[in-house]
Amino acid sequence: MVTMRDVAERANVSIATVSFVLNGTKRVAPETRARIEAAIEELDYKRNVVARALASSHTRILALLHPCREAWPNATGNRFVMSAANGARERGYDFVLWPLNDDEQMSHLLAGGLVDGVLLMEVQLRDPRVDRLIASGLPFALIGRTEDEELPYVDMDFATTIDQAVEHLRSFGHRRMALVTLRMKDPAGNEPGWITRVKSAYLDAMAALGEPATVITVEGSSAGGREAARLLSEDFPEATAVILVNERASAGLIKGSRALGRTVPDDLSVISAATSAELGEMIEPSLTVMAAPAGQLGRLGVNALIDQLEGAQDAPPHVLIPCTLVPGQSVGPAPIRQ
Amino acid sequence: MVTMRDVAERANVSIATVSFVLNGTKRVAPETRARIEAAIEELDYKRNVVARALASSHTRILALLHPCREAWPNATGNRFVMSAANGARERGYDFVLWPLNDDEQMSHLLAGGLVDGVLLMEVQLRDPRVDRLIASGLPFALIGRTEDEELPYVDMDFATTIDQAVEHLRSFGHRRMALVTLRMKDPAGNEPGWITRVKSAYLDAMAALGEPATVITVEGSSAGGREAARLLSEDFPEATAVILVNERASAGLIKGSRALGRTVPDDLSVISAATSAELGEMIEPSLTVMAAPAGQLGRLGVNALIDQLEGAQDAPPHVLIPCTLVPGQSVGPAPIRQ
Repeated sequence: MVTMRDVAERANVSIATVSFVLNGTKRVAPETRARIEAAIEELDYKRNVVARALASSHTRILALLHPCREAWPNATGNRFVMSAANGARERGYDFVLWPLNDDEQMSHLLAGGLVDGVLLMEVQLRDPRVDRLIASGLPFALIGRTEDEELPYVDMDFATTIDQAVEHLRSFGHRRMALVTLRMKDPAGNEPGWITRVKSAYLDAMAALGEPATVITVEGSSAGGREAARLLSEDFPEATAVILVNERASAGLIKGSRALGRTVPDDLSVISAATSAELGEMIEPSLTVMAAPAGQLGRLGVNALIDQLEGAQDAPPHVLIPCTLVPGQSVGPAPIRQ
Repeated sequence: MVTMRDVAERANVSIATVSFVLNGTKRVAPETRARIEAAIEELDYKRNVVARALASSHTRILALLHPCREAWPNATGNRFVMSAANGARERGYDFVLWPLNDDEQMSHLLAGGLVDGVLLMEVQLRDPRVDRLIASGLPFALIGRTEDEELPYVDMDFATTIDQAVEHLRSFGHRRMALVTLRMKDPAGNEPGWITRVKSAYLDAMAALGEPATVITVEGSSAGGREAARLLSEDFPEATAVILVNERASAGLIKGSRALGRTVPDDLSVISAATSAELGEMIEPSLTVMAAPAGQLGRLGVNALIDQLEGAQDAPPHVLIPCTLVPGQSVGPAPIRQ
């Protein structure tokens, strides 16, 4: 087997210099680098990640932890993942998705010595995974926030997003607006932080408007969307608009409203937040969406992690990016209600 | 650091027996296993995957290779992935998704010694990745087929699926049926095998019916679906039904047809194959779908790989499973055309 020593001899450099080039750990003069790369090519030298990991205690592999549900990721979640993967690749890291169901699998990952760092999504307010990561000493970055906002994060700016959605609906004359979001099976406090933050931004906005607030939570599915339409007509029939933060329920909400005799947008305006224009286009009528900054956040998250690994971080990031309004055909003038 | 030897001494067994329990490589009496697990607990022994890999030359990690596109996976592809991940976990393997863009990344994976085996999806008829895997000697399994059907595979039974779709449409009186499928940027021959197999099953079915055939290929998006509606009305206006095998174009096809004055199913029946009932429900009207056996195939694929790794394989699998018809509201009686 060709070794790093063979490469060093052929290129007439030290083994350390070969290692600098292979692991990107130190700058090497372009001409020297070219000579080493030529030697690697000529000798058909293959790096063995396992051997290298033992030698350097680095694998240059990053893992994105995600729950192993058949329904994950949705279209928007997937955009986070792929932009993070591409960002890692550009900086010379391998990037794997690590489906994670339970605590045992987490132990396995942390004890494994396999990855240099971890990216966490769908962060809960009180997230036991974050506690485990802190205790383990393995570098990590969050896309999302816990209650403890001292920890570095990149996240959607839910407060600004909800404010802009409310503002858009107000510009069409709406005042009575309901929020439809995701119902979690987890006990309260263990829900993803975004659910809590969306709800409180909505409640604040309604309070500022002096209007009553109604929060409806349903499962993320067509059936959930139809349930939301029913609950809406029973509990808050005077609402003329809905802010929806539950991507998978969007089609069901429109269809369910229609089945109850309320067409969108004539009788009910709908704005779907934290989703994608692509999904909005699939629905009839095309949804007005607040498109998630998924590509930006995926990249920022992975860059924060790599900066931390490479000691290149000036200060840990605390970055919030709002969604972007993409008008469709699901928002219209508020109807006059008697 | 606590070693495997420490665990063996505390449990009063051989190192080999500890290894059998840790790696699941051999049955160990329950009482002995319990003693070893207690020792692991007491000593807080952590397995190090990298060290273990060097000792055993096995990592018990499997990788699913997939193209690193922002649009991947779709809902159906995701179901494949998650069922494979769950299947791997049940047999004691870690399972990672390895986004793969180019040949260099493939080299890195193959040279790395990091994974015990690889699962490949979106297999092309002539797939350079399969050639690389064969040359590398790394065990792999295919979900999909190359031209060379001698290689083990599990795959959708496209011929039976298309025949059943045609049969369903015929039972509603349709005879003129178009096929709408996916346009690939890859040069011909390098396209995913399913595209070729779907097309040839459709052409055979139309020949058997003595009816003309029209194949329309568009990109997988709402815009692609609208383009299909336009091409259909221009090139094959006498068609009363469409067999669609392009999940992401489904909403655009329905909306585009409506914009051209053809409502589904009154003027045009649509059956969407190799997708999910969940996606069908999102569309208005709800699509009649042939639901992909994604969960079954994901599990069969990962089991075939693990059987191969463990020498438990009687014969390499050649398994085909057709889609299942889930009636919606997008298929109706054939209109009488003048």
